[in-house]
Amino acid sequence: MTHQIAILGASGYTGAELVRLIATHPSMQIAALGANSKAGQEMGQVFPHLRHLDLPGLVKIEEIDFAGIDLCFCALPHKTSQEVIAALPRGLRVVDLSADFRLRDPGAYETWYGTPHAAPELQKEAVYGLTEFYREEIRAARLVAGTGCNAATGQYILRPLLAAGVIDPDEIILDLKCGVSGAGRSLKENLLHAELSEGYHAYAVGGTHRHLGEFDQELSRVAGRRVEIQFTPHLIPANRGILATAYLRGEAGAIHATLAAAYAGEPFLHVLPPGETPSTRHIRGSNFCHIGVVADRREGRTIVIAALDNLTKGSSGQALQNANLMLSEREDAGLMLAPVFP
Amino acid sequence: MTHQIAILGASGYTGAELVRLIATHPSMQIAALGANSKAGQEMGQVFPHLRHLDLPGLVKIEEIDFAGIDLCFCALPHKTSQEVIAALPRGLRVVDLSADFRLRDPGAYETWYGTPHAAPELQKEAVYGLTEFYREEIRAARLVAGTGCNAATGQYILRPLLAAGVIDPDEIILDLKCGVSGAGRSLKENLLHAELSEGYHAYAVGGTHRHLGEFDQELSRVAGRRVEIQFTPHLIPANRGILATAYLRGEAGAIHATLAAAYAGEPFLHVLPPGETPSTRHIRGSNFCHIGVVADRREGRTIVIAALDNLTKGSSGQALQNANLMLSEREDAGLMLAPVFP
Amino acid sequence: MTHQIAILGASGYTGAELVRLIATHPSMQIAALGANSKAGQEMGQVFPHLRHLDLPGLVKIEEIDFAGIDLCFCALPHKTSQEVIAALPRGLRVVDLSADFRLRDPGAYETWYGTPHAAPELQKEAVYGLTEFYREEIRAARLVAGTGCNAATGQYILRPLLAAGVIDPDEIILDLKCGVSGAGRSLKENLLHAELSEGYHAYAVGGTHRHLGEFDQELSRVAGRRVEIQFTPHLIPANRGILATAYLRGEAGAIHATLAAAYAGEPFLHVLPPGETPSTRHIRGSNFCHIGVVADRREGRTIVIAALDNLTKGSSGQALQNANLMLSEREDAGLMLAPVFP
Amino acid sequence: MTHQIAILGASGYTGAELVRLIATHPSMQIAALGANSKAGQEMGQVFPHLRHLDLPGLVKIEEIDFAGIDLCFCALPHKTSQEVIAALPRGLRVVDLSADFRLRDPGAYETWYGTPHAAPELQKEAVYGLTEFYREEIRAARLVAGTGCNAATGQYILRPLLAAGVIDPDEIILDLKCGVSGAGRSLKENLLHAELSEGYHAYAVGGTHRHLGEFDQELSRVAGRRVEIQFTPHLIPANRGILATAYLRGEAGAIHATLAAAYAGEPFLHVLPPGETPSTRHIRGSNFCHIGVVADRREGRTIVIAALDNLTKGSSGQALQNANLMLSEREDAGLMLAPVFP
Repeated sequence: MTHQIAILGASGYTGAELVRLIATHPSMQIAALGANSKAGQEMGQVFPHLRHLDLPGLVKIEEIDFAGIDLCFCALPHKTSQEVIAALPRGLRVVDLSADFRLRDPGAYETWYGTPHAAPELQKEAVYGLTEFYREEIRAARLVAGTGCNAATGQYILRPLLAAGVIDPDEIILDLKCGVSGAGRSLKENLLHAELSEGYHAYAVGGTHRHLGEFDQELSRVAGRRVEIQFTPHLIPANRGILATAYLRGEAGAIHATLAAAYAGEPFLHVLPPGETPSTRHIRGSNFCHIGVVADRREGRTIVIAALDNLTKGSSGQALQNANLMLSEREDAGLMLAPVFP
Repeated sequence: MTHQIAILGASGYTGAELVRLIATHPSMQIAALGANSKAGQEMGQVFPHLRHLDLPGLVKIEEIDFAGIDLCFCALPHKTSQEVIAALPRGLRVVDLSADFRLRDPGAYETWYGTPHAAPELQKEAVYGLTEFYREEIRAARLVAGTGCNAATGQYILRPLLAAGVIDPDEIILDLKCGVSGAGRSLKENLLHAELSEGYHAYAVGGTHRHLGEFDQELSRVAGRRVEIQFTPHLIPANRGILATAYLRGEAGAIHATLAAAYAGEPFLHVLPPGETPSTRHIRGSNFCHIGVVADRREGRTIVIAALDNLTKGSSGQALQNANLMLSEREDAGLMLAPVFP
Repeated sequence: MTHQIAILGASGYTGAELVRLIATHPSMQIAALGANSKAGQEMGQVFPHLRHLDLPGLVKIEEIDFAGIDLCFCALPHKTSQEVIAALPRGLRVVDLSADFRLRDPGAYETWYGTPHAAPELQKEAVYGLTEFYREEIRAARLVAGTGCNAATGQYILRPLLAAGVIDPDEIILDLKCGVSGAGRSLKENLLHAELSEGYHAYAVGGTHRHLGEFDQELSRVAGRRVEIQFTPHLIPANRGILATAYLRGEAGAIHATLAAAYAGEPFLHVLPPGETPSTRHIRGSNFCHIGVVADRREGRTIVIAALDNLTKGSSGQALQNANLMLSEREDAGLMLAPVFP
Repeated sequence: MTHQIAILGASGYTGAELVRLIATHPSMQIAALGANSKAGQEMGQVFPHLRHLDLPGLVKIEEIDFAGIDLCFCALPHKTSQEVIAALPRGLRVVDLSADFRLRDPGAYETWYGTPHAAPELQKEAVYGLTEFYREEIRAARLVAGTGCNAATGQYILRPLLAAGVIDPDEIILDLKCGVSGAGRSLKENLLHAELSEGYHAYAVGGTHRHLGEFDQELSRVAGRRVEIQFTPHLIPANRGILATAYLRGEAGAIHATLAAAYAGEPFLHVLPPGETPSTRHIRGSNFCHIGVVADRREGRTIVIAALDNLTKGSSGQALQNANLMLSEREDAGLMLAPVFP
């Protein structure tokens, strides 16, 4: 049986990545592509790398007939997303890739995003889309909220360790290095090639990055107490990839064993042998996440490093993985593409 | 039915690219990986981006039992390749990715490669592997010679035009821009990141590049007369991609019509609408080739530009396409992966 | 004696490059920086790499008192430039870096830039700023028009050869590879890092690039007859640099000898030994231009390749070189900085 | 008065960078260039970006007559450096850029470098070359040991803070991001462009990087007690630059005030206004170091970030700054070049 799929926000990077992945999916068909600003164009004009595919033309969202749609991906900016989703047919399954439904608490949403939430009822209903930790809820969900790409990377390191109590929850530092596609296709001076290439810098330093809202919510829930990490993202001149370096208090042996056990059966999360560390180049373009554990020379301190592709496992790949669960498909359908290297 | 596949030279980029592509092939299984210098290692150690795959370990070529192998890819350096292939079982189907069997004339081989050919009998038997122009011969072949990546790009522009007589065969200039992976994983100072990035230059200027041997052979055959093009490759600081800019004498309308007709049924060769030109970023990691035609302001002169991925359509993708034909599989099996952008 | 300098358009790349170069100049002082859109800011905010310099703040152009200014660089967009310069004090020396005064013929200007020229009187007065060929005129000039960066690179190859009659003026093909800073600091989707990096493509194909107006004007003047070249620029994922590959009809020996003789006394133009070719990485950040000559395998055909930095020798370095002449300073003052490699 | 300068190890990146900087120095002349493996070549062949300079040819070190040399830079690999320097004339001033004389304790040297020191007497005599903290000793020194580039970056953050007691010496984490030129011009597979570009990873994780020997020695000395930091370097796909992100325990106000006061008179060390952070792109190719301080959302925790160019302020620029002191020249002679951006 083939599922009919709609993608709203098809002219952004995560929209295009969804199309790339679904193109190899055995039982999904793209039935509608919404992209208000580029409505009237073909997808191959907006993203020439997809020109070989037989795709519907881009249309305004209000022109889409959702009657025959089985599942809708929403890859719109936050705030727009909550308005659009609130107007969709009630029974339609939705995977949202924006930030709009990640935070359960309307107050937390307002704190981090600066405006009251326009669809607090939906916010309550949404399931947090970190697949490996919310599988059953996702299977049963109507609305799944894709996680932040940085938040996903950090949680893959931290959740099992906090749950097992093998690290000190008050002493967690996460230093992230992020490729530029995470900033999307937006026209900002600091995203120009001439500005970005051959240099690197930190941003949102000191605890102001919005993904901290997710970290606080999820890690506190896992630990059963308030957890506030330190988190500094850095922009790196490369297109794809997040490398998260976590500085932790705990024994490397216990940490490695906990992660290895937690992810033993996971198709996409690979814990490397003790002492080995990952590189973003080895997961580029794929849904895999590599995690490495190394003991520091100082007793009781451990470094854990995780690498994933922000556009795939960090957003569109995760979204497809969740959609597979919601549609009772194989969880890895369309997602086993090997990384592209070099 | 699943075909058992061996890859010799699995520790190079084209070997790894074959593994990446075959991993999604519905009816091929990798049964043996030969890599003399890295024998004893796992593929995931040599290429961590492939660590999620269940692959045989790397062994020395002489350790491989070819009895159960249906087809062997040979991704070894030239000269080594002819020796290794000469020693393989006579009946084994072979797709060679080296330069060793591209030239039919032993004299031409010696001219361009500086040594006499060690397997001239095999040289006679080999079919030139430019799939779209040698399909029937490839289907029937035991030994197929993969083309040079630059030679493939140029021929996709020139063959139909010379065959149709719509360009002047004496006035062909091909200016190529090539990504660095075409040079392989070899330890040369000029391939270091610090040397290469943020700069670009021409090499093998003046008609000394070995792929000219192929151009001379193939284009003369197509034109039915001696054809000698001008050809200058340039090294560009990017990993994958060849962009070939051809300066031709002929009418743009006739040229576009000829190319569009020639490739109308081809799954991988896409002729863009008149006036549009391709970019390497839109075919990266895929088996597609995009071709654009533009009339120059000077009457009777036309620019044709083609883009393909040197590791995919330029070598390993082409090799798999040919193997599909030799094994009576769908020609596009394992090859419809969309390009990775950004 | 220290000359007081004003720079209009200081918030663009060529403005910043002027500041970088003038910072090491022994007898120039920056007295005013005009930048309408960023007026009120410090230069170190707009360009943090210049924060160590003691510079005047950015102001609106109309706020500048030109009374004490000896020379004014105008690094504004075309069209704006002609309006601003027309309003400057009559006696003020001006070096314009825009396209506004490169073409002598108002009709040609309208053809290539799509609007009538607003200051045709100034257009007549302006001297074309290709230093090595207009030295005496520049020394005496009040208004010097900086050349296009592509046009400069091509002319360094072609002018001496056309003047000496050693190449066929009807058979000139120029294939250019340009770094991204040539497009300026403008917010265009195709200039984003995620769009540009790891890919390359041609643009303005077929003879539509505006620098052809300059080529036509200057090369026809040198040759004493109408000359129309073929010219295709390509955008390369690197910040700085133009590499021009010229395909010419003529003997390599005569071509090399002509160029070597023409540039024997030039401080910035270096003709490499026969057979050697240049790389953009070896002139990055400097005012040098390297030129190489190679004979093609086909009799009577020669490839000449030139490399320069579009922001330095291609615009701001050239502008400073011209200013030095206009102010009777050493021509190389502030310009002997070595390239930065790697 | 012009000082005669010799550079040993002129064929590496730090050797070339010394030549680039000295080329603009008002009172230094390069009299000899030693490079054993490339002896007999011209510098312009080995480094074409320096071809415009009038330089002596490369010779074997034993061919150099040190009689007329005022100061010798030694840019050789460690171990080679100690042997070569031990054989130089006793009275010759030497600035060593290798790791050989950074550690005062022969035991520490053996621990971190794996072999006994071959010139322990010289080791005692050498002055640690972190200019701003050893000025007087450097002025009087015969042998100055250049610091590690990572060690310099970290110490610029940490020394004033430890000296002032405003941070907890037991809780220092330093996460570094380094460009590739820091690894030198060595032929290693992981330094190839195709391997490195578009990816990033940590190395020497867990406290194994040799620069920790320097950190331990110097920070313990400053603090007056044992200090052991955590330090993880990461390799970033860019040519130049180190960005050090320090996670510290202490109040941001006190930390900023301490750094601002410590560096108030320093020509090359710039402390940014509170809350601002640096980027490597704004110090590229220069001797400047930018330092930013930001309070974390968690009370009592502060992030300090420093950026410098590993080849300039991190090695060759520092070496020239020290040589200026040793020769009683202006400390900033040859070093005020502005960064190159973009």
